[in-house]
Amino acid sequence: MEREISSAVIRRLPRYYRYLGELLRTGTERISSGDLSAIMGVTASQIRQDLNHFGGFGQQGYGYNAAHLYEEIGKILGLDRERRMVIAGVGNFGQALAKYFAEPKKGFVLAGLFDSDPAREGQIVAGMPVRRIGDLADFVRENDIVIGILTVPKEAAQPVATLMAESGIRAIWNYAHVDLVLPEGVAHENVHLLDSLMTLGYDLARSEKKADM
Amino acid sequence: MEREISSAVIRRLPRYYRYLGELLRTGTERISSGDLSAIMGVTASQIRQDLNHFGGFGQQGYGYNAAHLYEEIGKILGLDRERRMVIAGVGNFGQALAKYFAEPKKGFVLAGLFDSDPAREGQIVAGMPVRRIGDLADFVRENDIVIGILTVPKEAAQPVATLMAESGIRAIWNYAHVDLVLPEGVAHENVHLLDSLMTLGYDLARSEKKADM
Repeated sequence: MEREISSAVIRRLPRYYRYLGELLRTGTERISSGDLSAIMGVTASQIRQDLNHFGGFGQQGYGYNAAHLYEEIGKILGLDRERRMVIAGVGNFGQALAKYFAEPKKGFVLAGLFDSDPAREGQIVAGMPVRRIGDLADFVRENDIVIGILTVPKEAAQPVATLMAESGIRAIWNYAHVDLVLPEGVAHENVHLLDSLMTLGYDLARSEKKADM
Repeated sequence: MEREISSAVIRRLPRYYRYLGELLRTGTERISSGDLSAIMGVTASQIRQDLNHFGGFGQQGYGYNAAHLYEEIGKILGLDRERRMVIAGVGNFGQALAKYFAEPKKGFVLAGLFDSDPAREGQIVAGMPVRRIGDLADFVRENDIVIGILTVPKEAAQPVATLMAESGIRAIWNYAHVDLVLPEGVAHENVHLLDSLMTLGYDLARSEKKADM
């Protein structure tokens, strides 16, 4: 019944979810695609098209019920379930993420920290002990872990990602600055921070070129 | 002379740059779009199209000179210049980024740290003192700062971003989980980590649905 949805649409859903959450917090009960368009800076027709992929939710002349739409998008994003996660690599970003997830966020629960450096083993970060990477597979199986956060140095990224996949982890959130090769059925999402910063470099270079003309 | 280039192409450039850097490190001198295609998992025709936006660089039957292409893409991304940056918000992610940029990366140089919390003022993070946010404008003007890294809580994000823009910062790298409104001519790039994680949630929900069928 459900058609294949383009990743561009999927990538816009968290943003809808975020705006709807804000609207609910300020007491909004219903909203038209036109009003949503104005606050989100996306065309109303794009909003209607995007939400039509999931059955629409809107009613002609009424708009969308904000709470219902928020809940439905949450379900599509799987936020109605708890997702248990581990972090591999407790360096700068691993520690920052551990502290960020010290409180669960939208059903994402951090359950364990792992590092290959024996000096880090047993250290407490964000209230949790750092475990040895050799214990990852057992931990994943025993604790229903589905997401692996990969914050290891880039040389270690592929082997640790492979270990995660073999241990039964089904989705990898990759902060290492490499592209991973993973078995079919293991999802991944890259956060390549330096790539993102470089696109800002492009914007700066372009505006300098304009200024020179 | 230069056409307007789509942001999708721009977003792929850092990845080309990264792969070419790896190839150079392993001693590769020239590479065909076909070989680049195989290692990057992008079609050869897409690679040729992307690079044609910038004049091509390739020669029929020879392929690309890796060092030349690397350098040219670096110039397009503005990496041939030093870009001085400040961080506003020295919490978990601000600290992680400060440590990450303790060594300059690709011409991106971190020059100062700012926070609105008086308790943080004067603390040393990654070898630099945390300054008061009230001193940001003068610091930006006196130190040729062009990029502001925004790692403040979301409530503070818009006012601090506005302050950055008014101080002369021309590009904002936004880690706060809000969409900013900025004056024309000030570029920005969002790193919305939770949005990225939610798309993994979607992948998980989708594979569970398949498993149920």
